[in-house]
Formats: sequence, C-alpha cells, structure tokens
Amino acid sequence: MKTLVEMIREKDSCVCVGLDPVIENFPKEIRSRDTSVEDQLVRFAQGVIESATPYAVAMKPQIAFFEQYGLAGLQALRRICSIIREAGLYLVMDAKRGDIGSTAAAYAKAFFTPGSDWESDALTVNGYLGSDGVLPFYQAAKARGGGVFVLVKTSNPSSSELQDLLVEGVPVYEKMAALLDRIEPQTASNVLGAVVGATHPEELRRLRALMPERVLLIPGYGAQGGTAEDLRGAFGEDGCRAIVNSSRGIIYSYKKSDLPWREAIREATKEMKEALHAVR
Amino acid sequence: MKTLVEMIREKDSCVCVGLDPVIENFPKEIRSRDTSVEDQLVRFAQGVIESATPYAVAMKPQIAFFEQYGLAGLQALRRICSIIREAGLYLVMDAKRGDIGSTAAAYAKAFFTPGSDWESDALTVNGYLGSDGVLPFYQAAKARGGGVFVLVKTSNPSSSELQDLLVEGVPVYEKMAALLDRIEPQTASNVLGAVVGATHPEELRRLRALMPERVLLIPGYGAQGGTAEDLRGAFGEDGCRAIVNSSRGIIYSYKKSDLPWREAIREATKEMKEALHAVR
Repeated sequence: MKTLVEMIREKDSCVCVGLDPVIENFPKEIRSRDTSVEDQLVRFAQGVIESATPYAVAMKPQIAFFEQYGLAGLQALRRICSIIREAGLYLVMDAKRGDIGSTAAAYAKAFFTPGSDWESDALTVNGYLGSDGVLPFYQAAKARGGGVFVLVKTSNPSSSELQDLLVEGVPVYEKMAALLDRIEPQTASNVLGAVVGATHPEELRRLRALMPERVLLIPGYGAQGGTAEDLRGAFGEDGCRAIVNSSRGIIYSYKKSDLPWREAIREATKEMKEALHAVR
Repeated sequence: MKTLVEMIREKDSCVCVGLDPVIENFPKEIRSRDTSVEDQLVRFAQGVIESATPYAVAMKPQIAFFEQYGLAGLQALRRICSIIREAGLYLVMDAKRGDIGSTAAAYAKAFFTPGSDWESDALTVNGYLGSDGVLPFYQAAKARGGGVFVLVKTSNPSSSELQDLLVEGVPVYEKMAALLDRIEPQTASNVLGAVVGATHPEELRRLRALMPERVLLIPGYGAQGGTAEDLRGAFGEDGCRAIVNSSRGIIYSYKKSDLPWREAIREATKEMKEALHAVR
C-alpha cells in the first residue's frame, strides 16, 4: 500500500474532502421519499467522491454524521468506504476514538482490520487518556501501513480552554505533541500524525516546527474560517506533510453556485487544490 | 423518567455492570457456529442483564466491543439497548465521543433521540475539545432527562501523562472538573457527571470534594485493581452520587467459579453491591 505522503506526491494534492452528510442539505434530485436513507447517503457520497477524485488525495468521512442516522447510516458508510478506496483515495475515518488499552484495541480492530465493515487507511484519535490509549491504534495502523492522527490543537473556538493551558510555560497541546514523540520518534515514515486546526495559524507554525516529519491533518479550512494564507509553511520541507480538510465548503458548495451540484463540487475541490498549491 | 440518583436510591445499589463482549470468552453454550455473531452477542448480554438486574442499577455497554464486530455488533447493540431499558436499568453508553459543536450535536442525536437505534440514558464524553464540544451533549441529555459523564481522571496507568500535568499547581484533571462547572453550575440535579477511576483513590477524594453534587461514574473496580475500600467517601453525602463499574470482573466471573455462568454473574453482582454498601 502506498503511504499518504507518496499519494500526496503522486497526485500533487493536499486536499482532503470531509464527508459530513446532512440529508436536508442534499440536492433535490437525491432527496426522495421513495429512496431509503441508506441509498440517499450513498448516492450523495458517490457524487461527491466522483467529483472530487481528480483533485483530492483523501476523503474524511465524519462518522458522527453517519451514526446520527443509526444503522442505516453505518450501512451506508460501509458502502461508501468501498467507493472511496476503489476511487484510489486515502480514507481518513474521523471518529476521534480513544479509550483505555483493551478498548482502544477493539476500536482499532473495527477500523483497521482488512475486510472490516468500515476499513480505513487512517483514524483520528483523542489522546486525553495518554499513551496506553494511543498505542493500540498506532500498532494496528503500523501493521497495515496506515496512519493515526492524534488531536493536538483542534479548530473549534473553545479548543483554548483546555489545550492552551500552560504547564510550566508550555501549552497542553505541545505536551500532546511531545507525547506522540514518546510513542514513536519522528522519522520520514511516521505512522502517527497530528490534528492541528487551520483556524490557529500561530499555533500551527509552532507545532509544525516541533513536528517537522509528521503528517498534519488540518481541519477548519473554508467554512470554519481558515484560509490558504494561514497555511503557508504548514506542509513541511517537501510540501507533502499535511492534508487540509474542507467539509461543508466543498460538499455543499452548490448552494452558493449556479452550477449543477456535481460540477460545483468539482470546481470547489479544484479551486482548493490550486489555492493550497500557491502556499505549499 | 427517573433520574439516576432516584434509581440508585430506589434500588439501593451503586453497581454498574460493564458490557465488554469478546465472543472467545463466552460460555460454550452461547458460542456456536450455527448462531450468527449478532445472536451470540444478544444471547450473552441477555444472560448478563437478567442475572445482574436484581443487584445492579445500571448497565454500561462499551461500544468499541460492538464496533469491533462491525454492523453485526451494532445490530446486536440495538437489541441489547432495548433489553437493558426493558429491565428497568439505567443505560450508560460508554462511547467517549467528543468533537466540535456541529459534530457533537450529530453524536448526541445518535444516542439521545427517542427511538434511535442505540437510545441511551447517558453517554461518556471526552472533553479535550473544550466546552463547545460538550455543550451539545449536555443540551440533548438535559432535554431527555438523561446524563453526560465527562472524562476527568481515567482509570488507566498512563492517564497521568496528560491529566496530571500541573497548570499553576493545579492538575489538568481538576481544570477539566472546573470546565464542567462553567457549562453547568453544581446543583442536586446535575446533568453533567464525571468519570473518575477507582484506581486513583487520592485523586478521587480530591475530585469528590470539588464536585460534591455531581454523579461520578467510577470505572476500574475489580479486574483493573480498584477495591471497595478505595471508594470510601466517593458516594457523596447522600450515598447516591456515584455508580461504580465492573466489566470483566462480573461478566466473565464464571471463569473463576464452579457455578453455571448466569449464577456466577448473579453472585458476583450481589457481592459487589454488598461490598459497596459497606463503604457508602
């Protein structure tokens, strides 16, 4: 399997498209009382994936938006995972799982076992429990050549409340970055990556300097307010050490466009790829 | 709907039984090649629930152990949620979810919407993202008269790595407890509770003092090493402000017993209830 960095290089793209489905927001041609929730979710995702594939390197389904539809949502997600992988895109499951060792191992099994229902290339993980809660994810990802993105500095407004607290002058989010180094020293082929929000450019620069080798998953671009200019320097020396995620800004781009929905998504992905290219 | 505190008082029990199913550990009469994974999970859970109901007040399915079986596991969990609620037990879904606002709202919908597939009375939540990641869970739980248990000090060995870091002399886990107070001031009918491990009796005492009114969910009893003696004082002034969870120590108790599996589970739950009674 190719690594994410290899895929970024080959596709010359750092664009990650976030899949946060809300049926009320779907184009009219997808919404239909005669179609099951599962099929509506799959048809919309299929359109997004086909439209984004020429310009994106990764897709990031946000599992909460599938869980909200119960079993139907997770049945749809199973089919969507196959479509993403068949399209040759890297699949980051945004699940922010995290628990004590034996439980973390069960989650890792759910997402990293070959042939599992929601088989993914990478998973987002919450490291509040410490290294024994991250290690099982790291080991399972390593075994399959995948990745783990640990939350370091998140993109939301109240991320500062806990993550910015100072421990002898060092913010908690930097302590989290240091925790990753204790689990896996930094090399050019790291399994552990970090989630760092585009909405905090200052912190992003500091964290990039602390983690020169790790791949960053950068959410918060677009609808949440992060711009390409905020990302200058975030891609590492080779320009291939970050993926930038936009969800609503791409998948619902047709709401602010005269183009048919698939074309609007294609254009929005292309524009984002070019905007990032200018600052890589 | 009765609150958890009312249920603890009525049942005179603080026992929470954790449901962490691993099919390889099931009794031989449950494991069968002719039975689907879903049915094996349901039959085992049914036996546990029936056996524990006379002595327990709550059941805590650990969703990771269902997700590891894919859709079959989550189909089983749907049926098990019904069985737990029909048995009159309080259902704490141990999912440790947590995300930015709109995503947290989607998770809350999945677990707190009446009639949803995994409808729960309470949910465990990871607060690393700060208050805007906790608020949607709080609001949804409040609307249905349920609860939210935010991770404060977890039971695992490496919980110290991040949670014990000192911020101007105050450990991060106390800062997390203070964060809860900013979202919901303490009263006798709090929606927000806290997860505090039985494996850290010193920290448990400090956190009890800081959160006299909140219901604590205390994992780590039994197989993880926590004892009843460690819990003296943890139940608050009225003795009804905590539930103590044991998973493996109860559901796999038959492995160390000559009794048939259901009876062993019944006895283990009864013993735990009595052990806790002595220190409440």
